[in-house]
Amino acid sequence: MAKARHITLPAGFVAAAARCGLKTRDQEDMAIIAATDMAVPTAMVTTTNQVVGATVRWDRRILPRGYGRCRAVVVNAGNANTCNGKHGDRDAATMAKLTANCLGCEAEQVLVCSTGVIGQPLDMNKVRAGIVAAAGMLSTYEDAAVARAILTTDTHTKSAVATGRIAGKAVTVAGIAKGSGMIAPSLATMLGFITTDARCSPVALGRALRSASANSFNAISVDGDRSTSDTVVLLASGAAGNTNITGGTPLEKFTKLLQGVCAELAEAIVRDGEGATKLLRIKVRGARSDQEAMAAAKTIAESPLVKCAAHGGDPNWGRILAAAGRSNAKVDQDKASCKIGGLTVMRRGASCPFDRRAAQVHMAGQTVQIELDLHLGRGSYTVLTCDLSRDYVTINAEYHT
Amino acid sequence: MAKARHITLPAGFVAAAARCGLKTRDQEDMAIIAATDMAVPTAMVTTTNQVVGATVRWDRRILPRGYGRCRAVVVNAGNANTCNGKHGDRDAATMAKLTANCLGCEAEQVLVCSTGVIGQPLDMNKVRAGIVAAAGMLSTYEDAAVARAILTTDTHTKSAVATGRIAGKAVTVAGIAKGSGMIAPSLATMLGFITTDARCSPVALGRALRSASANSFNAISVDGDRSTSDTVVLLASGAAGNTNITGGTPLEKFTKLLQGVCAELAEAIVRDGEGATKLLRIKVRGARSDQEAMAAAKTIAESPLVKCAAHGGDPNWGRILAAAGRSNAKVDQDKASCKIGGLTVMRRGASCPFDRRAAQVHMAGQTVQIELDLHLGRGSYTVLTCDLSRDYVTINAEYHT
Repeated sequence: MAKARHITLPAGFVAAAARCGLKTRDQEDMAIIAATDMAVPTAMVTTTNQVVGATVRWDRRILPRGYGRCRAVVVNAGNANTCNGKHGDRDAATMAKLTANCLGCEAEQVLVCSTGVIGQPLDMNKVRAGIVAAAGMLSTYEDAAVARAILTTDTHTKSAVATGRIAGKAVTVAGIAKGSGMIAPSLATMLGFITTDARCSPVALGRALRSASANSFNAISVDGDRSTSDTVVLLASGAAGNTNITGGTPLEKFTKLLQGVCAELAEAIVRDGEGATKLLRIKVRGARSDQEAMAAAKTIAESPLVKCAAHGGDPNWGRILAAAGRSNAKVDQDKASCKIGGLTVMRRGASCPFDRRAAQVHMAGQTVQIELDLHLGRGSYTVLTCDLSRDYVTINAEYHT
Repeated sequence: MAKARHITLPAGFVAAAARCGLKTRDQEDMAIIAATDMAVPTAMVTTTNQVVGATVRWDRRILPRGYGRCRAVVVNAGNANTCNGKHGDRDAATMAKLTANCLGCEAEQVLVCSTGVIGQPLDMNKVRAGIVAAAGMLSTYEDAAVARAILTTDTHTKSAVATGRIAGKAVTVAGIAKGSGMIAPSLATMLGFITTDARCSPVALGRALRSASANSFNAISVDGDRSTSDTVVLLASGAAGNTNITGGTPLEKFTKLLQGVCAELAEAIVRDGEGATKLLRIKVRGARSDQEAMAAAKTIAESPLVKCAAHGGDPNWGRILAAAGRSNAKVDQDKASCKIGGLTVMRRGASCPFDRRAAQVHMAGQTVQIELDLHLGRGSYTVLTCDLSRDYVTINAEYHT
């Protein structure tokens, strides 16, 4: 049976995953994604949390500007290697070195990601065995196992592929991601690994990734908590043979392609949010600025009351307006209007007659559309989040240290 | 059987409650608390949400500086009279007028509070009947009914009484409060009504209430949502006969007495938080300033992951540190330490050996003590919150508009 490919679909990449026992369940937990021959242009964005995992410290050390050239990424799930002091820093460096030894490159060309429990030392015997095993299986046929290896509380793998023509050449962008708890704007416990065969300068790659992340990974929220290890990595092999992308229209085209993959992965993360039963697409428009629209949208998206109402299928616009009112966005309740599933449920800050049955049918579906118009300007922003269910509590009350 | 008194315990006040059908359950839902003879010094603090209920607009109109003289407060539960447009403003004014007519005072001497569902017009026939009925029963024996009348999703009434000597006279401060969802720092769906027999100037009363609220009502959080109708009112009859309090030591003493009542009511609100099974006392110390300590403590208190871990009895310090790391407080993970129930569970940003059994026993209790020391300065702040349970979700998914 042919296996679905994604991360190695762009020419110039191999990948593999192994089981080394870091996860409590029997599943792959160590993965390597590598450029086949040499270091390639690479871009990276990382968490904004002040508390960061040892791997983020390592990655920032080797890519201080967020872009450069790397050969590979090594990832483990099951242990975040965060809050392990100097020991943790040493272990992250060792993971890079072990991978570099297997690939025949420098340790400083290997990015490291760890996700899972905080505050427990990595079992380096397991890690060593996992890296050696994965490195020995590198190929273009192991994508499914790699996508599984990076998961923690996720219920399924997440991948996306997009193709387009840039400067006359077919270019492919492919990505995988993980994340379902501790998800919040400005990145959260999520990892994303994206490969492309596009030829692109490191600095242009960095710009493309920052831009594509802004309206995808940075516009999602599961619970407002922001993780210590969030990282998105983009590697570009150049195998497509296009004229080197350094800016202008080719960079715009490439960014758009990349944005499509990032948006698909971001939506998949929210849909797989811990305990999620539906996705909420929260659009705020008419704010005084995009910045204020974002502030209002994120506050609504993180309101437990709004998320519970969505879970219960209740078109409770009062909670939506109240959440906006406590955000940093200017709100004039006498001007605001709100739509749920396209139905106007509030006008000028007061209830208006609407088809309650239709609203409830909309809210019972898998995607709930909420639109709050502040009628104060032209700023707008959209955030994706999920509902808050009893299962979220169960998962997070029982995911023990 | 003698009934417990609180709100009318300080001399000079009467109160009563009536059932007028605003609540779906059969319980008192309209209450009046009044000074017996004339308007008395009064102070008030209200929500910081930009979206406010019609009653808050009314109250701010008659007490624009947050203090002055009032005769009474009329309160209904079951309908928040919020987001009802001009109609709502008219209804709030009518509630004041009806109460004033019964008491023989000016409408501008009557504060109005409404709590309950947002966006539904008040049934003024019910309101009218309720006010007339309550006004007809004003006495010093109806305190229990008054405390019940102001509840919404609360599971029990909340009251507190403190007495002390100020300038040689015995002074009593008594209060009742409601609130269990939409509770967050800077006031949230909570109402507090406090009476005292102290003689105190309106301006001093205002200072005392703002100061006492800062470390009590403003330092609690159930879910980070801030309501549109939060109000705390303090009425001072002067019946104690003390020298008029205008500042200095007498004001300090009075503020301390008041603070005790506010703190007790605030803690009662958190313990009755929707779905709460335990109280979390989160102290951040060693911050660069009290302001930063507050920012960190509030972010920890509002983290769903921390609250779920507490619910599950898990000493998960990683989530505590990660929440602080995404707050506006400066955090250096290599310096921070954390105690749970007095046991050091993290030192300099890394795990340290601790009696896990003892920590779990502590966390299984009704009060969990969390102390995060940032070791960066002398700022400290304490926030009270509760755990996040499946029942919170059930309550808020089913509390329909």
